[in-house]
Amino acid sequence: MSGAERIEADYLIETAFDPGHAAAAMAGEQSSGTFVPVPGETPELKARAAARVERLDVLETVGSPSLPGAGTPRGASPPVIRRAAVTLSWPVDNLGPSLPNLVATVAGNLFELRQFSGLRLLDLRLPASFAAANPGVRFGIPGTRRLAGVEGRPLIGTIVKPSVGFDAGQTAALVATLCEAGIDFIKDDELQADGPACPFEARARAVMRVVNDHAERTGKKVMFAFNLTGEVDEMRRRHDLVRELGGTCVMASLNSVGVSGFLALSRHAALPVHAHRNGWGALSRHPLLGWSYVAWQKIWRLAGADHMHVNGLRNKFSEDDDSVIASARACLTPMSDAAPNVVMPVFSSGQSVRQAGDTYAALGSADLIYAAGGGIMGHPGGPAEGVAALRAAWDAAMAGIPAAEHAKTHPALARALEGAS
Amino acid sequence: MSGAERIEADYLIETAFDPGHAAAAMAGEQSSGTFVPVPGETPELKARAAARVERLDVLETVGSPSLPGAGTPRGASPPVIRRAAVTLSWPVDNLGPSLPNLVATVAGNLFELRQFSGLRLLDLRLPASFAAANPGVRFGIPGTRRLAGVEGRPLIGTIVKPSVGFDAGQTAALVATLCEAGIDFIKDDELQADGPACPFEARARAVMRVVNDHAERTGKKVMFAFNLTGEVDEMRRRHDLVRELGGTCVMASLNSVGVSGFLALSRHAALPVHAHRNGWGALSRHPLLGWSYVAWQKIWRLAGADHMHVNGLRNKFSEDDDSVIASARACLTPMSDAAPNVVMPVFSSGQSVRQAGDTYAALGSADLIYAAGGGIMGHPGGPAEGVAALRAAWDAAMAGIPAAEHAKTHPALARALEGAS
Repeated sequence: MSGAERIEADYLIETAFDPGHAAAAMAGEQSSGTFVPVPGETPELKARAAARVERLDVLETVGSPSLPGAGTPRGASPPVIRRAAVTLSWPVDNLGPSLPNLVATVAGNLFELRQFSGLRLLDLRLPASFAAANPGVRFGIPGTRRLAGVEGRPLIGTIVKPSVGFDAGQTAALVATLCEAGIDFIKDDELQADGPACPFEARARAVMRVVNDHAERTGKKVMFAFNLTGEVDEMRRRHDLVRELGGTCVMASLNSVGVSGFLALSRHAALPVHAHRNGWGALSRHPLLGWSYVAWQKIWRLAGADHMHVNGLRNKFSEDDDSVIASARACLTPMSDAAPNVVMPVFSSGQSVRQAGDTYAALGSADLIYAAGGGIMGHPGGPAEGVAALRAAWDAAMAGIPAAEHAKTHPALARALEGAS
Repeated sequence: MSGAERIEADYLIETAFDPGHAAAAMAGEQSSGTFVPVPGETPELKARAAARVERLDVLETVGSPSLPGAGTPRGASPPVIRRAAVTLSWPVDNLGPSLPNLVATVAGNLFELRQFSGLRLLDLRLPASFAAANPGVRFGIPGTRRLAGVEGRPLIGTIVKPSVGFDAGQTAALVATLCEAGIDFIKDDELQADGPACPFEARARAVMRVVNDHAERTGKKVMFAFNLTGEVDEMRRRHDLVRELGGTCVMASLNSVGVSGFLALSRHAALPVHAHRNGWGALSRHPLLGWSYVAWQKIWRLAGADHMHVNGLRNKFSEDDDSVIASARACLTPMSDAAPNVVMPVFSSGQSVRQAGDTYAALGSADLIYAAGGGIMGHPGGPAEGVAALRAAWDAAMAGIPAAEHAKTHPALARALEGAS
């Protein structure tokens, strides 16, 4: 059966050439083709191995090329630059259900092709063999809720700040404060992994002592995502330490470890893996280049991510709200009926009580981690009131009550709303 | 000593804000800072952990933002958008000499910062601890020359084409033709790894039978770079098979395996690793976003790459010649006196006898792999004349003789020059 299975990828392209010819060049470059026809490239081989252009919808004409370096057809002066939506497909037999080789196939040399002044991977559809051959989401929403002991609402989370500079003891002291405050989830900053100033093992031991003490006293084990980003053997060793210490989550920076590095971690992991997307901007910030999050997150879900960062509404970065919600929706959309691999989206960056209502209204789900920084530590009533305010904001959001209304009977929320920008 | 060591990174930025303030925001985001000052961020902690702005040179003003999503200062209408060269530095104690964590530090969240309508990493300078802690280039130019038996001139190479579609036997048959033709180096296409249509093991066995037979008859062992891109355990297993079969090179797609995946391979490898850069365009094609090759290749050299792709002069992609030569020069420039980690550049994409002279003149070195496709298989006299023509073209280039002049006494070169575009 696998012989008939095909991989599909959707692209947005921009070209001064005939869009159909340009799409055919993409298909050729990414499969049997070469710039010069070669003797072995027979019709039979093409029928077996070539990528196909499945769809081509020519879109708008633009006044100037979005990216430099593109060619123009001879004689066309001035050239007409058009955008188009293109779908290519490949026989899975070219590469098998291998995620690293999928990346080389759907997102390899084609970004550099001279035919294009813009080329962006928008989405992917993968045959069932990919879900079967790869770890996929192992904990996801239900596993995370079970380990964190939180049902029916978002996990209220935060990030250890300052990003880097605390030693293990200082980190643990902050974690103690946050546990007391009633937080559900805490994560290391992506800049804090295993530097000499705050070694991973010392931090894990100090933090888990606090988390375990708190759990013994209260029955609530706060989920702490330890950033174990590093080499494969280091990550596996750090994972094992966290598990031995009773920890419930590890974190890795996707663009630092890469697909093969991440697979080596997730195939080993017995804990949820919190996937950090730092570096994502380089792959995505130009709208006519790189990857859409919708396509990108599918790779990492199949590779074993349990939580994925999606930024947040009215964030402090350059991403707009529509893009944030599209990313979160993508995380919550099953990849297939048989293997949904739904991943838990993580909202962060400037999040406070003010975005809870809009986030819930736009997403229609509370299956997420809502990470706030200043909104917790900076609450005028202290961190416990900060957490209480966020909980109240989400209660209101899920009940369809305006936050200001709910605040009349929830003073922590009221004070947060006064202070939040 | 390590406490005093600092990592330096150079960036090109574009911002509508005061460039000094914007650079300070970068430094904050990528070290101790947060968007809201937090209680623990003391002056002592900042002195210990904060990134510093080491240099700021304000450059030209531009008419419109290069990337969408950037903010503008209040009241500035229209805003003045400036570019600037910025150098940041970090204490190595924040992260240790860890390449995956280096990537998160120098190329993490900062691409998404609202302050910037352009942000590109241009170069890196790393303390000696990085070279000490990482595998670095193990074979490089001397090791590759020794294994390939080629001194004093480029390795003449080619790529198995069609890119994908041949089975193991067809691949081996082409390799036999190329060996007979006198080639030095052959590589798998990056689309050919371990698909069901051409499994790695079958291909390796069939190809090495041919390569070994040829070596026994002629004394020349052609270097074949087997594309073992895959999961970490797969890559290690495939490497071991190639070594057992007497092979002399393996290849991996860097953007598919990632830094941690690549380190896991190279720490294991007893053969040179040929590093393919497919997907590079997504990280680099916009001049105000992502990575310069000069910065990027340093990561992979420390991670253990022996050969790195640099495209070629008058290539079929969108990259201009200056950029190609800058990349190749970067590969050949020692990273330090103590640990030069010089990597062998690989020229490919539309390369023929016509670019040899200009390549040598621009680079001043023949320490490279020169991979041609159509120029070999498409030579009117057959592949042996194709290889002979490329050898002659390089002999001429290195002797400072114009190719057309040399062709008068070298008929294979003459015919190639007639045919080459």
